[in-house]
Amino acid sequence: MHILVIGAAGMAGRKLVERLAKDGRLGGKAVTKATLHDVIEPTAPAGAPFASKTLASDFSMPGEAEKLVAEKPDVIFHLAAIVSGEAEREFDKGYRINLDGSRLLFEAVRALNMQSGGAYKPRIVFTSSIAVFGAPFPEAIHDEFFTTPLTSYGTQKAIAELLLADYTRKGFFDGVGIRFPTICVRPGKPNAAASGFFSNIIREPLAGHEAVLPVSEDVRHWHASPRAAVEFMIHAATIDGEKLGARRNLTMPGLSCTVGEQIEALRRVAGDKVVARIKKVPDEAIIKIVAGWPRNFDASRAESLGFKAEKSFDDIIRAHVEDELGGKIA
Amino acid sequence: MHILVIGAAGMAGRKLVERLAKDGRLGGKAVTKATLHDVIEPTAPAGAPFASKTLASDFSMPGEAEKLVAEKPDVIFHLAAIVSGEAEREFDKGYRINLDGSRLLFEAVRALNMQSGGAYKPRIVFTSSIAVFGAPFPEAIHDEFFTTPLTSYGTQKAIAELLLADYTRKGFFDGVGIRFPTICVRPGKPNAAASGFFSNIIREPLAGHEAVLPVSEDVRHWHASPRAAVEFMIHAATIDGEKLGARRNLTMPGLSCTVGEQIEALRRVAGDKVVARIKKVPDEAIIKIVAGWPRNFDASRAESLGFKAEKSFDDIIRAHVEDELGGKIA
Repeated sequence: MHILVIGAAGMAGRKLVERLAKDGRLGGKAVTKATLHDVIEPTAPAGAPFASKTLASDFSMPGEAEKLVAEKPDVIFHLAAIVSGEAEREFDKGYRINLDGSRLLFEAVRALNMQSGGAYKPRIVFTSSIAVFGAPFPEAIHDEFFTTPLTSYGTQKAIAELLLADYTRKGFFDGVGIRFPTICVRPGKPNAAASGFFSNIIREPLAGHEAVLPVSEDVRHWHASPRAAVEFMIHAATIDGEKLGARRNLTMPGLSCTVGEQIEALRRVAGDKVVARIKKVPDEAIIKIVAGWPRNFDASRAESLGFKAEKSFDDIIRAHVEDELGGKIA
Repeated sequence: MHILVIGAAGMAGRKLVERLAKDGRLGGKAVTKATLHDVIEPTAPAGAPFASKTLASDFSMPGEAEKLVAEKPDVIFHLAAIVSGEAEREFDKGYRINLDGSRLLFEAVRALNMQSGGAYKPRIVFTSSIAVFGAPFPEAIHDEFFTTPLTSYGTQKAIAELLLADYTRKGFFDGVGIRFPTICVRPGKPNAAASGFFSNIIREPLAGHEAVLPVSEDVRHWHASPRAAVEFMIHAATIDGEKLGARRNLTMPGLSCTVGEQIEALRRVAGDKVVARIKKVPDEAIIKIVAGWPRNFDASRAESLGFKAEKSFDDIIRAHVEDELGGKIA
């Protein structure tokens, strides 16, 4: 089977491709070819049992989506996005990539579907976000809660979800949208995202560095590991679409915990010495932003469909130590 | 004040314009000019105390939206839409008018807003639909129920709602989206819409004609009169936007009743002779379509914001007799 990954150079895309390379299969079928696309050229996976083609382009430009799907990939992972902060600052760019890019992709697949008399009907896995929700929230956001985003990014994701569901209902392709929790522990360097500290306070101390905690320990948030995120994408690619019916967009399971609980988990896994590397430096701007974020979800539907996330933050930390640190804590 | 009505030739648009012509004012301010637009040229209202300009064009064509808003109308009523059945049959046309047309309008207003340093910030009243919801439903659809439309029309309306809220949040204009109940009693001729019978079984017997009832009397649905619909639009044009906060799209109040209750109301208002003109001819296709439609809503939020609908179907019938039949029943 031929797999297309759009957004293959991002964190989730890279981890997905590594996993496909390791497994060599998806849903019981051998992967024979991977087309890896991003705005910068992705790296082909080392040691994969299939051929990889890597491509760089702006997929929202006229004709690009058609080129990407021309070989009729069996499964399309659509992970490409302008992230939240950038989409908020650059209104036109956010809409162009996150809305128009998604729609052009869906249109390109629809054209092939119609040309083939309906025979070409690939699974499209679309990574959405809990940013489709906007405060005020119930205690736990349930599966039928409405989408009233408070960012342009969340708006664009919610619109792409609606398109995905309608194109699927019309039979143009077989779409599954998955709303990721905040991915924690994010590998790599600390970044300027307001949500960065959730990962920074775990990743940096484990690597022997100090990290800044800008909010109070009672801040509650919704997490899943990069390992769980890969599992979500794999499961979304292989699940029986009939089981989803018309409601094609799912809040993924995750773990709701406070920053204090994150820190106590770090203490259990890595000890007091590591925890001592967290420095509390309150930042009013970040405190204000985070106050409007979701704290907890009831993701029953996705759970009943077989999506799984970590049950404890200790497990999230252990996944990071195993996957990113080769089992070693500094 | 200058008012622009896009979709002025439709039933709701005509009734809105007649009302504006009669009042001569909106929200306490004199209307000095009305620009009336539709795909076919609308009729200027008779005896209006303001100048009317009538225009016909396809507002989704490049440059048309810019022309419509170039004179910076103070209030824009955006009622233009391809209706449900047509949008379902003609996928591209539905998306072009209902999604792209709305977005081009919002973009044209945004451009003027930005050129004016934020000074130009009109109220936009957008008429959405309960078609943004898709079965299965709770007993009464509440204000925080999610939008999982089962038609392309509903999808396009839900997307336009999201855009309206995001453009409003960004300060480009001041939008209010209102989801109409099924409008009953619709004036005019019987039409082929699956929902037509809800009006046909009242309007035709009152005018001395027979009408076909294709479903059973226990079918429950959600109604408001054309008179209430005009009130919704006027109230949405004049309400303090601050009261709405970030959640800009509202399910309008309405009346939930069964077809049997409609018929009993007709009997009370017009007598047995009129009711006898309803002929029961079950239509399996219509029965199936209607089974997936909303039956009842809890529109608390709109009610608390001052939107009002009829409290009894008798009142809906009386409004029709007064407004359309000059008080006379055949």
